[in-house]
Amino acid sequence: MLWSGWGDPERAAPLPESVVGLLRDMLGVRPAERPPAALDAVDVPACRLNDEDLTALAKIVGDSGVRADTETRVRHTRGKSTPDLLRIRSGDAGDAPDAVVLPGGHDEVLAVLGLCAERGIAVVPFGGGTSVVGGLAPAGGAAFVALDLRRMNALVSVDEVSRTAVLQPGLRAPDAEARLAERGYTLGHFPQSFEWASIGGFAAARSSGQASAGYGRFDDMVVGLTVATPEGTLDLGRAPKSAAGPDLRQLVLGSEGALGVITSVTARIHPVPEAREYEGWRFASFAEGTAALRRLAQDGPQPTVLRLSDETETMIGLADPTAIGAGSPDGGPPSQCLAVLGFEGTARQVADRRAAAAEALRAAGGEPLGAEPGEKWERGRFDAPYLRDALLDVGAFVETLETAAFWRDVPRLYEAVRTALIGALSGAGTPPLVMCHISHVYPSGASLYFTVVSAQGKDDPVAHWDRAKRAVNDAIIDAGGTISHHHGVGTDHRDWYAREIGPLGVAVLRAVKERVDPAGILNPGVLVPPAAEE
Amino acid sequence: MLWSGWGDPERAAPLPESVVGLLRDMLGVRPAERPPAALDAVDVPACRLNDEDLTALAKIVGDSGVRADTETRVRHTRGKSTPDLLRIRSGDAGDAPDAVVLPGGHDEVLAVLGLCAERGIAVVPFGGGTSVVGGLAPAGGAAFVALDLRRMNALVSVDEVSRTAVLQPGLRAPDAEARLAERGYTLGHFPQSFEWASIGGFAAARSSGQASAGYGRFDDMVVGLTVATPEGTLDLGRAPKSAAGPDLRQLVLGSEGALGVITSVTARIHPVPEAREYEGWRFASFAEGTAALRRLAQDGPQPTVLRLSDETETMIGLADPTAIGAGSPDGGPPSQCLAVLGFEGTARQVADRRAAAAEALRAAGGEPLGAEPGEKWERGRFDAPYLRDALLDVGAFVETLETAAFWRDVPRLYEAVRTALIGALSGAGTPPLVMCHISHVYPSGASLYFTVVSAQGKDDPVAHWDRAKRAVNDAIIDAGGTISHHHGVGTDHRDWYAREIGPLGVAVLRAVKERVDPAGILNPGVLVPPAAEE
Repeated sequence: MLWSGWGDPERAAPLPESVVGLLRDMLGVRPAERPPAALDAVDVPACRLNDEDLTALAKIVGDSGVRADTETRVRHTRGKSTPDLLRIRSGDAGDAPDAVVLPGGHDEVLAVLGLCAERGIAVVPFGGGTSVVGGLAPAGGAAFVALDLRRMNALVSVDEVSRTAVLQPGLRAPDAEARLAERGYTLGHFPQSFEWASIGGFAAARSSGQASAGYGRFDDMVVGLTVATPEGTLDLGRAPKSAAGPDLRQLVLGSEGALGVITSVTARIHPVPEAREYEGWRFASFAEGTAALRRLAQDGPQPTVLRLSDETETMIGLADPTAIGAGSPDGGPPSQCLAVLGFEGTARQVADRRAAAAEALRAAGGEPLGAEPGEKWERGRFDAPYLRDALLDVGAFVETLETAAFWRDVPRLYEAVRTALIGALSGAGTPPLVMCHISHVYPSGASLYFTVVSAQGKDDPVAHWDRAKRAVNDAIIDAGGTISHHHGVGTDHRDWYAREIGPLGVAVLRAVKERVDPAGILNPGVLVPPAAEE
Repeated sequence: MLWSGWGDPERAAPLPESVVGLLRDMLGVRPAERPPAALDAVDVPACRLNDEDLTALAKIVGDSGVRADTETRVRHTRGKSTPDLLRIRSGDAGDAPDAVVLPGGHDEVLAVLGLCAERGIAVVPFGGGTSVVGGLAPAGGAAFVALDLRRMNALVSVDEVSRTAVLQPGLRAPDAEARLAERGYTLGHFPQSFEWASIGGFAAARSSGQASAGYGRFDDMVVGLTVATPEGTLDLGRAPKSAAGPDLRQLVLGSEGALGVITSVTARIHPVPEAREYEGWRFASFAEGTAALRRLAQDGPQPTVLRLSDETETMIGLADPTAIGAGSPDGGPPSQCLAVLGFEGTARQVADRRAAAAEALRAAGGEPLGAEPGEKWERGRFDAPYLRDALLDVGAFVETLETAAFWRDVPRLYEAVRTALIGALSGAGTPPLVMCHISHVYPSGASLYFTVVSAQGKDDPVAHWDRAKRAVNDAIIDAGGTISHHHGVGTDHRDWYAREIGPLGVAVLRAVKERVDPAGILNPGVLVPPAAEE
C-alpha cells in the first residue's frame, strides 16, 4: 500500500491534460504549491515507549512482532481519508503509533491487551488501514501501539453444510476470496476498499459492499464473533438467530476497536455464482430512478448490484453525455441518470431475475442501455481511490461521504447534503462539483453516497474541508439521516453519532466500554467520547 | 384471556374419549386428583404497596389506571408456560403483582419508572401476558407492579413510501393486522401466540412467526424503537441499516423489560398478499426432509411458510398414519415426515416460487401431497394452546420448548434434546411422547421446536418438569444450540443464557442494566442475574 495514497503505486495513473484543464476552468483548481513530502522527510515524533515496554511486548509476540522503525510507524499513521492523505503528504505523521505490534493469535491479543492496560498504553487495532473516518488516530495523547493483525490471516475452516466460514481478522479480502474460491465459495463482499481491507475491519466498521443488494451487508453476513478485551473474551453466535436476549454480536459489529479486538469472524458464504451479468438503465431524473429502485427493493426481484447515479454523477461518469439520451427540451444539458444493475447466481436465476427486473424498470420509466454501462462500471469498481490520488496530485480536493435514511426522507436528505456542501465549499466563488449515487437499497430505505471535487483552497485544505464536513454532518442529522451508512464513526463522526443515539445511548456505550476496558486503552476517543470530555 | 389457561374460554374443547383412552394406555395419564381451583379460591398475597404508593401512581396514570383488586392481580400473575398454568390452577398466585398500572403514553411510563425507582418498587412490563419462560415473575421478592400497556394500543402512523408503520407496544397482534389491513398492509407476523400477544412483547422477546421464512422474524422487521428507562429515553433507528456504531436496536430487542419499556415500535409492513397457497410434502425421514429444507433456505426459492415435522409429530398429527404413504418395508409403521409450505405474494410470484420449490423438493426426495395438509395446518395454526388446556384437564402434562443451531449441528441437537427429555421423563417406566418440527429456517441454520406429552407424575408435576427442563437446557447448551430461538430467556432460561454468552457477556449486559436502571427495578431477575447472586 502506498504510504501517502492508495494501493499499489504501480497502478497510479496521472490525469490526462484535458481533465486538468477542465478542473482549472470549471473549479479553479491550481497546482499545489508544494510537492508531497518524501517518505524519509516525514516528521515522526519520538517513540514514547521505553525499552521495558518494547521488551515486554516482544515477550508476548516475539521480537519480529514489535516494530518501532520510522517507516513502519509512518505506514500505520492514520487511515485513507482525504485529510489523512493531505496531512501525510505534507510530511505530518504526528499521529504515528509509537510502535506496531503483530500478534499471532487470540491469546497473544489478550496478553497484549492485558499488558497495555497495566501500562496505560493505548491500542489501535489495524487491519487494512483503510479507515476514512479517523478510526486509526486515537484521542487523548497517550502512547499507543497499532495492533496490526496481518499475521492472523487464516481461513480457519469452511462448513459446507451450514455455508459458513471461520476467518481470522487480518485476512485481506482478496485473499479470503481466493482461498474460498478454491473451495467453490465466495463471501460476496466487495466494498470499494476491497483490494486492501481486512475481514476484521469489515466487521468492526459494519462495511457494506457493492453487491450488498444481493449478498447483504457484512454485518448481515456475520453469524459468529470472537472478541478479545482487556477483561477477557466474548465468544458469540450459536445460531443464525436467537431469542436468547439482546444480540451481542450487534454490539461488537460497528464497535471499531473501542470495545475489543475481533479475533475471529464466522461469516456466511455462497457458492461462486455460475453467471454474472451487469447492465445499465437510463432514467429521466434522479427522482424517477429512485422510485424505480425503491420498487425493486420493496417488491423484487432484488438484483445483486443496484445503484443509481444522480444527474451530475451521470454526466461526469460518461465521456460523452449525449451517449445515453438526448438533450433536454430547452436545449440545455440532458437530464438523465444512469442505474447499474448486476445479477449473480445460476444462469436460470440470473435470466429470470433480469427479465422480471426489466419489466419493473420499464414500467417505472426506465430505458435499457444494455450490458456496456454495467460492464464498464464493473471493470472500474475499485479504481476511484486511485483517481483521488491523481486529483490530489494536480491540486484538486476530492472526498466522499455517505449517509442513509428511510425512503420517505431520502429526497430531503439528498437536498440537504448537496446544499450544505455547495454552501460550505463555494467560498472562493467557484462552487464545488457534487455528485451522488444511491449505493445500497433496503425495503425501507437507501443510502446516499456523495463525491465532492473542488479546488483545495489557498490556505489550509484540511481546515477548509473540516468546516465543510461539519456543516454536512449537521445537515445529515437535521434531515433525519444516519451519520454513516458504511464508513463508520471513528473520531470524525463521533460528535454527530452522539446526537444520533442521544445522551442515554452514549451513556450505554460508555458503560459497556468501561466494563470491558476499564483502563480506557481501546482506541480511545473513537466511537464514544471519553466521559471527561463532556 | 382465560385466567387459568389459554385464550377465549368459549373456544375450549374437551378431548374425545378415544384420545383420553390412548393417553392412558400409551403414556399412563391418569385424571388429576384435584380439579382446578376456582378464581375466587386462588390464594393471592396481600398487596405490599401502601396508600401513598397507590396515590402517587394514580397521580401519574389516573385513578382508573391503578388496579389492586384480586381478579386483576390474578390475571396478571405469571405467564402461560405449563408450570405457570399448573401453579395457578392449583390456586397459587404467590407471584401476583402488588398492583397493575396502565400508563397512557411514553411520558406516563417515564414518570412511573421514575417514581418506582425512587420507591424501590419493581416494574414488570405486561403486554399480552403470553410469556412461557417466566418473564413475568420477577425475582428478589420486592413489591412490584405489572405495567399493563393495553391503553397504549394505537397504530400511530403508516409510511407508505418507506413501507413502515409506527405501532404502540400494547397493540395486540390481531388489532394491528386489522388496522393495517384497512390500509392494505400486513406485518406478516403470526406466531402461535398471535391472537393474544402484543407488539411490544414481540419486540422485547424477539418473537418469530410462522411466516418468518417469508417475512422475517420480528427483530428483522423492527427498524425503529423508543424505550423508556428510569434514566431517560432511548430513541433509535434513523435508517434501515447504518455503520454508525453498534446497533443499539439489537440491544433493546430481546431485553425482555429488563433494560427498559418499549413504548414505540417502527416496523416494516407489506402489501396484503394477493395470493396465499399452502401445501404438504412427504419425506421418507426427518433427515431427508431437513436436507430438502436446507436446500430451499440456501438456494431458494424461499417459501413464506416452511416447516417440517419429525416422524413422531407426523404420525400424531395425522388421524390416519397411512394417509401419506405406505408402511415401512419391514411391515412396521411407515417412516415419513410431513413438510408444510406456504407461499404468499402476487399470483405470479406464488406460482413461480411454488413451481421452483416443487422442482427442488422433488430433487431432494419429496413427494407432493397437494393443498390439503397445508390448508389443514393453516386452519389449526393457533389452536395448540387450546389443546394444551384440554390435555391438562385430563391429567396429561404437555409443554413445548425450542432451540436453534447452525445446520451442521442440527442433527446432534435434535438427538440431544430428545434423549434428555426421554431420559428425564421416563421415571415411572412410561416414556413421554416427544415430537419435533423445524419451525424456522435460515441460510446457515434452523430452529427445532419440541412438544412433549407425558403423565403429570404422581407428586409435584411442576417440580417433575423442572428437573426435566434443566436436563434439556444442559443438553441444548452442551450440543451447541441456543437456549431459545423465539420464546426468550425470562427467568427459566437465565442460567443457561449466562453459559451461552459467557461471564463477560453477562457482565456487559449487567453494566448496561446498571446504567439505565441503577435501582434495579426493571423486571429484576429476568435475563441477567443480579450481581449479588453470583
